[in-house]
Amino acid sequence: MYKIVLVRHGESIWNKENKFTGWTDVDLSKDGCKEAILVGKKLKKMGYSFDLAYTSVLKRAIKTLWNILSIMDLLWIPVIKNWELNERHYGALQGLNKDETAKKHGKNQVNLWRRSYDISPLPIEKFDHRYPGKEEKYLEIPEKKIPLTESLKDTVKRVVPFWEKNIVPNIKKNKKVIIVAHGNSLRALIKYIENINKKNIINLNIPTATPIIYELNEKLEIIKKDIINK
Amino acid sequence: MYKIVLVRHGESIWNKENKFTGWTDVDLSKDGCKEAILVGKKLKKMGYSFDLAYTSVLKRAIKTLWNILSIMDLLWIPVIKNWELNERHYGALQGLNKDETAKKHGKNQVNLWRRSYDISPLPIEKFDHRYPGKEEKYLEIPEKKIPLTESLKDTVKRVVPFWEKNIVPNIKKNKKVIIVAHGNSLRALIKYIENINKKNIINLNIPTATPIIYELNEKLEIIKKDIINK
Repeated sequence: MYKIVLVRHGESIWNKENKFTGWTDVDLSKDGCKEAILVGKKLKKMGYSFDLAYTSVLKRAIKTLWNILSIMDLLWIPVIKNWELNERHYGALQGLNKDETAKKHGKNQVNLWRRSYDISPLPIEKFDHRYPGKEEKYLEIPEKKIPLTESLKDTVKRVVPFWEKNIVPNIKKNKKVIIVAHGNSLRALIKYIENINKKNIINLNIPTATPIIYELNEKLEIIKKDIINK
Repeated sequence: MYKIVLVRHGESIWNKENKFTGWTDVDLSKDGCKEAILVGKKLKKMGYSFDLAYTSVLKRAIKTLWNILSIMDLLWIPVIKNWELNERHYGALQGLNKDETAKKHGKNQVNLWRRSYDISPLPIEKFDHRYPGKEEKYLEIPEKKIPLTESLKDTVKRVVPFWEKNIVPNIKKNKKVIIVAHGNSLRALIKYIENINKKNIINLNIPTATPIIYELNEKLEIIKKDIINK
């Protein structure tokens, strides 16, 4: 009935440097850019086309989408960019090296922060330079909605309403939709679409630049899931 | 009171090849791409920022805008792409070399087509491969609105209503707006904004990748016009 395509952005500079990124607006690496172009080529070759695209307000996702659309000659389609599709906010971990953090706090603690459903890293303070409320792109968000840290559960709480209110109505109008987002905002969405429980979602890892394609029936239940591996 | 920035796209491949382009979706040349990046650098250096961007559905304009926003770190702002900001449709001239056309039809006739206000080139037929109604990006436009050819007057008739209905309300909300469009869609807009008569508009030439900056009062009358030359 319906078909949607989800893509995690290509490799970012901080993926490469093994740092916690979250809402830090890190660029794609050169490899990440190439990965994105390859996704566009594959989707084009497979005969895909899109009417409408969604992404976050972070440039690693926006640029991945741009490269896909450019290769597919679809730069003219509407692109909706929204902070609610941003990566999970990683709180005070943002900018830290993952291995160094594991040495300092222990592997178990870091795994809890990274992989548990409802535990969030330590929050940042509002005077921290990493506080999103200082950035122009988040000025229109009510202060109480601006995260200081997030668990995956918190991410679900913003991604799912955005999906329901903004994306679902367009899918139901038969718009062919592509969503380019992040490891955890996509995990949040997939948890909801596939109805995965909070224990199992933790083990779901979403590789960069690897399209996940759902065929959905009228009730948006999954008929088929395809992953286009690299 | 208000400030808006208009930019014609950078050099396209057909600008370079001296062909009539119109609605043909020709890419930027390498120089055109560099020009666009330079515009972004200049606007950034001059302290400009934008909340909202408008462009056509033609890739030479979309890519020019992209390069400007990318340099300015503004890829996250909303971008509205609309066919009503497209270049003037050049009818049966689209794809022809300008010099060869002058040899065939005479310089005077070509000048009439290019520079008169209300004379349009010969129309294309609906079975012509250049007919926009066949392209997916124009499927939602009512058939009677799809041009077979256009005079500058025809272009004014679609650009000005788009300006009034879509852009002006956002300017009045104090949105900082950039519009990246085409030689003739910008001439159409400037004719209206500056209230230039149909005789004088013919002599207005808009160079590629050269920002035109208007300061407007509350009634959207011009207080100041600046051109940021290359």
